[in-house]
Amino acid sequence: MKILVLNCGSSSIKYALYNMDDKSVMTSGGAERVGLDGAFVKVKLPNGEKKTVMHDIPEHTEGVKFIFSLLTDPEIGVIKDLNEIDAVGHRMVHGGEKFNKSVVLTDEVLKTFEECIDLAPLHNPANLKGVKAVSELMPGLPQVGVFDTAFHQTMPAHSYLYAIPYELYEKYGVRRYGFHGTSHRYVSKRVCDFLGVNPADKKVITCHIGNGGSIAAVDGGKCVDTSMGLTPLEGLMMGTRSGDIDGGAITFLEKKLCLDADGMSNLLNKKSGVLGITGISSDMREIESANDEGNERAKLALDMYSYRIKKYVGAYAAAMGGCDIIVFTAGVGENQASMREDVCKNMEYMGVKLDVEKNKTIRGEEAIISTPDSKVTVCVIPTDEELMIATDTMNLL
Amino acid sequence: MKILVLNCGSSSIKYALYNMDDKSVMTSGGAERVGLDGAFVKVKLPNGEKKTVMHDIPEHTEGVKFIFSLLTDPEIGVIKDLNEIDAVGHRMVHGGEKFNKSVVLTDEVLKTFEECIDLAPLHNPANLKGVKAVSELMPGLPQVGVFDTAFHQTMPAHSYLYAIPYELYEKYGVRRYGFHGTSHRYVSKRVCDFLGVNPADKKVITCHIGNGGSIAAVDGGKCVDTSMGLTPLEGLMMGTRSGDIDGGAITFLEKKLCLDADGMSNLLNKKSGVLGITGISSDMREIESANDEGNERAKLALDMYSYRIKKYVGAYAAAMGGCDIIVFTAGVGENQASMREDVCKNMEYMGVKLDVEKNKTIRGEEAIISTPDSKVTVCVIPTDEELMIATDTMNLL
Repeated sequence: MKILVLNCGSSSIKYALYNMDDKSVMTSGGAERVGLDGAFVKVKLPNGEKKTVMHDIPEHTEGVKFIFSLLTDPEIGVIKDLNEIDAVGHRMVHGGEKFNKSVVLTDEVLKTFEECIDLAPLHNPANLKGVKAVSELMPGLPQVGVFDTAFHQTMPAHSYLYAIPYELYEKYGVRRYGFHGTSHRYVSKRVCDFLGVNPADKKVITCHIGNGGSIAAVDGGKCVDTSMGLTPLEGLMMGTRSGDIDGGAITFLEKKLCLDADGMSNLLNKKSGVLGITGISSDMREIESANDEGNERAKLALDMYSYRIKKYVGAYAAAMGGCDIIVFTAGVGENQASMREDVCKNMEYMGVKLDVEKNKTIRGEEAIISTPDSKVTVCVIPTDEELMIATDTMNLL
Repeated sequence: MKILVLNCGSSSIKYALYNMDDKSVMTSGGAERVGLDGAFVKVKLPNGEKKTVMHDIPEHTEGVKFIFSLLTDPEIGVIKDLNEIDAVGHRMVHGGEKFNKSVVLTDEVLKTFEECIDLAPLHNPANLKGVKAVSELMPGLPQVGVFDTAFHQTMPAHSYLYAIPYELYEKYGVRRYGFHGTSHRYVSKRVCDFLGVNPADKKVITCHIGNGGSIAAVDGGKCVDTSMGLTPLEGLMMGTRSGDIDGGAITFLEKKLCLDADGMSNLLNKKSGVLGITGISSDMREIESANDEGNERAKLALDMYSYRIKKYVGAYAAAMGGCDIIVFTAGVGENQASMREDVCKNMEYMGVKLDVEKNKTIRGEEAIISTPDSKVTVCVIPTDEELMIATDTMNLL
């Protein structure tokens, strides 16, 4: 069975074609600058070779059409006919309270998804465009939606509500939804398979730390809390996002800087985080280099970054009444050993003992990085959201 | 030695006259509706009797003058002559980064304090008015300022900085300051005296839970983190304040509700919290009653309230690498046993074992409420900010 995974953003379309017989990626890539001048598609071939193809992509249907043509291209394609594709799985960003699991995309489902546009006005319409493009180009091909928010729908009300007038939740759906749900679901399950334990008995804290970052508390396989909120701004310090900040600081700065809501949102989402503190970059690799060269602001950013992760780990251990497993995943979580060391330092009080030397050697591979006598097992588990989307799609057919 | 403690708000003046020989309160009270119609002063006499005196108070000098007249009143006064007062200690709200301890109020100090007005535009000017009123009425009487923010000035940068552009900290002083510092300082020290232990060795989490609430992590006697931020909005769910909320939810609601920064600040500070969720009241006693009568929204508010305290306790244990002592103080912390029970439930993983039966019997008195074999000692310590202000004032003379 061959499944195409699509992740349509407002100006990008990422894709991966899976052969689900052996769960291998036949090809993958992404269109960039969709709707802008100078659009192109980067393609990764099965042999690892990368190609960039310039192509005008005024909107998503043209983008999907061009990606289809690349899949069947005599030179760089991997299938002969589009009919070889059995289904398409879409990453969908905001399912609101409407979706707590992946679903086959029918007209009715899409209508319900449209009702969530208000909560993610940039992302959801782009997701929809991708679905409609496929419907147009390959009518009748089964499509599945996998929602970033779905895994977190098991949170209890005391975790997901903000302490604001209750009618703002009823009327506008203002509450914590959480994101990266497909990743948290994947690694919280995968780590139990990897360790040979039953997820139903385990309290797991999953740290998805990439350019965006979020943490989830997963008790018995169900998410009970997560750090991102109504939007992906809340929680950890990220590449360009502030994460947690005093609401009073927001209104203070709006007045000081004469910013309206959009201006403030832009400041907090695009100019803050690691970039805002260092003034150098949002990329943690560059910040680590700057720190090695003695840059004090880089050191500060690294300290803030891991300190906030550490506080969430502590908070979620309290939320669950303890913790059995901590997982690090995503770009920074899988690769930056120093961050993992900082987070796990002085956590013996809750049973965490990191194997500091082992930790240093692990980059992007499944591994236990705690000592054999650590009460809490600390692991690195590379995330694989695309595979999860492909798997959900296959299972729903 | 007799010391008058003054706490001047924008429309209120609270006072207490201390006899520092035995640290007793000779009389106390408060003027309300200063600058408004229908102003009055409530007086508590040494015998416990309470009186309300109506008196027109157009501004703070008149209020302080009237309070002075009540202190020497032949009928309800407690001193014969104002010269019996040796000094006045003022509660000052926001000392910014200028003050890390209490100071004698000189012209130079007051000028520095004025530079912090920007950070607390409602509170600091009222504090200043109180100081100036005393200077006018009793020139030469020593006055001392005790700052709500001072105790938290020992926080490291990774705790106090927000992950926003660094220049916003440099230019506007946007950072975490924390409040209730006098209370956190008092109870974190007092609990060590009470237990007969050395503060220098102890990791203490102080939970000041009143109508406003904040938590502090106090390591070796020094504050290393606290839940309130630039303003007293951040952190816990409070009577009418939201506490922590996604910055993205703030800008989302500003747009939805067409609110500017002041309107949003008003919503988050005055209409949110326990009042916002229940629609009933900001008073936890009323919410407990409503919960007893089966009100679901009251139950939800209580769950949210204690859950957020629990998460901060967990986060601060992680921040300090463990915790030896947890203190509950202030109106709710001293009196609401059910909240303390909820917070301490399932916290055995970090060494907390509450003596559930003992806890139920403790209201407003110093007591250990954990079991003898609990690794973490949990205590109730009634706070006494006024006594702390009087003590600081005495020590500085």
